[in-house]
Amino acid sequence: MEEKIFELIEGKKFGLLKGMLSEMNPADLAHIFEEVPEKDLPVIFRILPKELAAEVFVEMDTDMQQLLIEAFSDKELREVMDELFMDDTVDIIDEMPATVAKRILKQTDAATRRMINKLLAYPDDSAGSIMTTEYIDLKKDMTVDDAFDRIRKIGFDTESIYACYVTDNSRRLLGIVSVKDLLLNGKNCIISELMDENIIFANTLEDQEQVAVKFKKYDLLAIPVVDNEKRLVGIVTVDDAIDVMQEEVTEDIEKMAAILPSEHSYLKNGIFATYMHRIPWLLFLMISATFTGAILSNFEDKLKIFAALIAYIPMLMDTGGNSGSQSSVTIIRAISVGDIEFKDILKVLWKEVRVAFLCGLSLALVNAIKLFLIDNMLFSNFDVGLEFAEIGVVCLTLFVTVIVAKIIGCSLPIIAKKIGFDPAVMASPLITTIVDAISLLIYLTTATAILGNI
Amino acid sequence: MEEKIFELIEGKKFGLLKGMLSEMNPADLAHIFEEVPEKDLPVIFRILPKELAAEVFVEMDTDMQQLLIEAFSDKELREVMDELFMDDTVDIIDEMPATVAKRILKQTDAATRRMINKLLAYPDDSAGSIMTTEYIDLKKDMTVDDAFDRIRKIGFDTESIYACYVTDNSRRLLGIVSVKDLLLNGKNCIISELMDENIIFANTLEDQEQVAVKFKKYDLLAIPVVDNEKRLVGIVTVDDAIDVMQEEVTEDIEKMAAILPSEHSYLKNGIFATYMHRIPWLLFLMISATFTGAILSNFEDKLKIFAALIAYIPMLMDTGGNSGSQSSVTIIRAISVGDIEFKDILKVLWKEVRVAFLCGLSLALVNAIKLFLIDNMLFSNFDVGLEFAEIGVVCLTLFVTVIVAKIIGCSLPIIAKKIGFDPAVMASPLITTIVDAISLLIYLTTATAILGNI
Repeated sequence: MEEKIFELIEGKKFGLLKGMLSEMNPADLAHIFEEVPEKDLPVIFRILPKELAAEVFVEMDTDMQQLLIEAFSDKELREVMDELFMDDTVDIIDEMPATVAKRILKQTDAATRRMINKLLAYPDDSAGSIMTTEYIDLKKDMTVDDAFDRIRKIGFDTESIYACYVTDNSRRLLGIVSVKDLLLNGKNCIISELMDENIIFANTLEDQEQVAVKFKKYDLLAIPVVDNEKRLVGIVTVDDAIDVMQEEVTEDIEKMAAILPSEHSYLKNGIFATYMHRIPWLLFLMISATFTGAILSNFEDKLKIFAALIAYIPMLMDTGGNSGSQSSVTIIRAISVGDIEFKDILKVLWKEVRVAFLCGLSLALVNAIKLFLIDNMLFSNFDVGLEFAEIGVVCLTLFVTVIVAKIIGCSLPIIAKKIGFDPAVMASPLITTIVDAISLLIYLTTATAILGNI
Repeated sequence: MEEKIFELIEGKKFGLLKGMLSEMNPADLAHIFEEVPEKDLPVIFRILPKELAAEVFVEMDTDMQQLLIEAFSDKELREVMDELFMDDTVDIIDEMPATVAKRILKQTDAATRRMINKLLAYPDDSAGSIMTTEYIDLKKDMTVDDAFDRIRKIGFDTESIYACYVTDNSRRLLGIVSVKDLLLNGKNCIISELMDENIIFANTLEDQEQVAVKFKKYDLLAIPVVDNEKRLVGIVTVDDAIDVMQEEVTEDIEKMAAILPSEHSYLKNGIFATYMHRIPWLLFLMISATFTGAILSNFEDKLKIFAALIAYIPMLMDTGGNSGSQSSVTIIRAISVGDIEFKDILKVLWKEVRVAFLCGLSLALVNAIKLFLIDNMLFSNFDVGLEFAEIGVVCLTLFVTVIVAKIIGCSLPIIAKKIGFDPAVMASPLITTIVDAISLLIYLTTATAILGNI
């Protein structure tokens, strides 16, 4: 399919190409256009039917959009912008360099321009910044037939027609009626009798993540957005809510990996931007890890005596870190999907302690068997091998470290959430740094206590 | 609000309660019911209007559903099950103990029972296992008016009416027409002229994650599911797709934290199940980490000479691990949202090398300043402080480790994906273990080379 298209482009067979492209889906077309040489792009784009062209335009990435806009005549630009929904228009203007944005705004009429500027003013990541202003509004004394007339009149330019919003004369939201309700009731039914007054809505300034949560919780196709006076100003549709969910997950995952969240996708981010998102946590964690080093320095004299024990430090640190990460990441995710709240902290702790007991015991046992049987007996290299007491120190430390790591790992995210921090920050890297220091302290103290008097 | 409800329950004021609960949203009611004492639950549930009761039932967790089913008479059970959509029915039966499942099946008619058994037979996580079998089917020679008649006839029992599916006499899918198309066209238009034949569909056996990807890519409200003969057998709606997205993200995050993915939510999982999901990776990584220990053992004699260097091992290991994690987690996420494919590997490597250069340089510099100025001069404890050459070894190792860690971190997930493994497994824990061994090797080799001859 794609090869065929590139052949037609190469051969400039625009008639055939038009027929083929017109049948395709906007998202697929945008994907194919990424591979089209830049110089051919405006030509190919002009082949598309007007409405499809606008849909493809929305699916493209910012660079391609800018390239096309710069190639458009004013008339072409106006034609594409006229077909776009308000939320897409605002997104595009927001991403463009100032000169391009200015040129787009010049092609819109005064009312649209005012609306665009109003939407651009909403804070990033607010419901207002992702909503669209085209929706079906009804009045409560309309009949079902009136409602259908209204939908037929303004539905062409409306992204989502399946939820209709009933407002009073000052645009205050009174109720919602779905097209399903309209279809399944008689033509002469009055809207006020059909509408649901128990409305799930969002405020313009509400965080987009909260809005996405409502979609998930209440299985919505669209949510009305109201201002502080409860006046309906727009709607957010489920496809945009899905995009928000995806962005928020990426942000959480980045935080869990000690990266400052970034707005752009990986390949679009510059070297310096990527660096700036990564270096703060690396620096902070590096400095923190020197405390662990200080513990080792403190025990330097002992370490010269127990030299064989040094070899087990990486294993103890890693296992502690991994055990803590498992707990912290599990809890962070459970908090973010709403499975766990602060009130569950004791339940969580009790569960983690029991799991940690089982994990610690298994790991210590396997380790004891490995140290005793394989290292000492099989290779019979008693030279680098450990004494009974030393094996005891390693296994006991392992057991205690796993338990401590899991307790810290599960409680820090819950506490962070409670005191208003982002739980995602309490993930592997920070937990690992904390657990490293603790595991070394346990190791060296145990060693001194048990082996010190030998 | 909630307190008021509990007061009414306490006071057995069921009349007032009914009025209050009937106005509420099913998801909110299910949440409130979690706090209702088990013995009161069946009574309160019976207060709800029939349709709302069924909607609340679907939103409850398995334990509460089972409790209610066991309290229901056969007639009540039949009434609730009659109101449910097929996908919810199947989900519930799938989760119930065999005896309860049997009782539910006994209350359904033979045709429904056959359908349920057919749906239960689809593999877990397939499109077939999450689809519902109620949808609007049209014939291509119908008029718009005929279509509306059909919707009015079967729409009450259909989860999603906004996409209608045009099939031939052997149920093969010919096209899709939306209610928006129907509303915006004349009553006498023929469906075959309105329908879109360029259909995005799923196969019954297709992985649910693939289905969710299509929703995101094509902004769908529902997707038709066809069998191998292209016959329409069901649809998946966007709310179920959102649930799948959430499950798949949780699974990815678990894998990234070295946990085997689990079916149930955190608090529902038993101690032993949680243990079994965590211990395999802990054991594997612990054994792997002993290789790192072996490296230390090999350099034991040198370590006695460079004793002061031991204190910097945790910092080097942690920083290497964190640097590698940042890269691997970023790449894993970029692969999973479709930003990066195998063909981008060189682009990614080149980017990571440059970012690593900047990060490595900054970290080494800060470390040099800290070691030289603060540790050596401020505290003037030349005793535990390091010589110039030693500071050089630590900083050089840091710089090289960060670069190696980022190269490994970014390339392993891409390679894993290419050879058919799950990239998510190549996350922090595994990368950390690998990078630990490498960083120690670099450290001790550099130390021997530079300090060996002093």
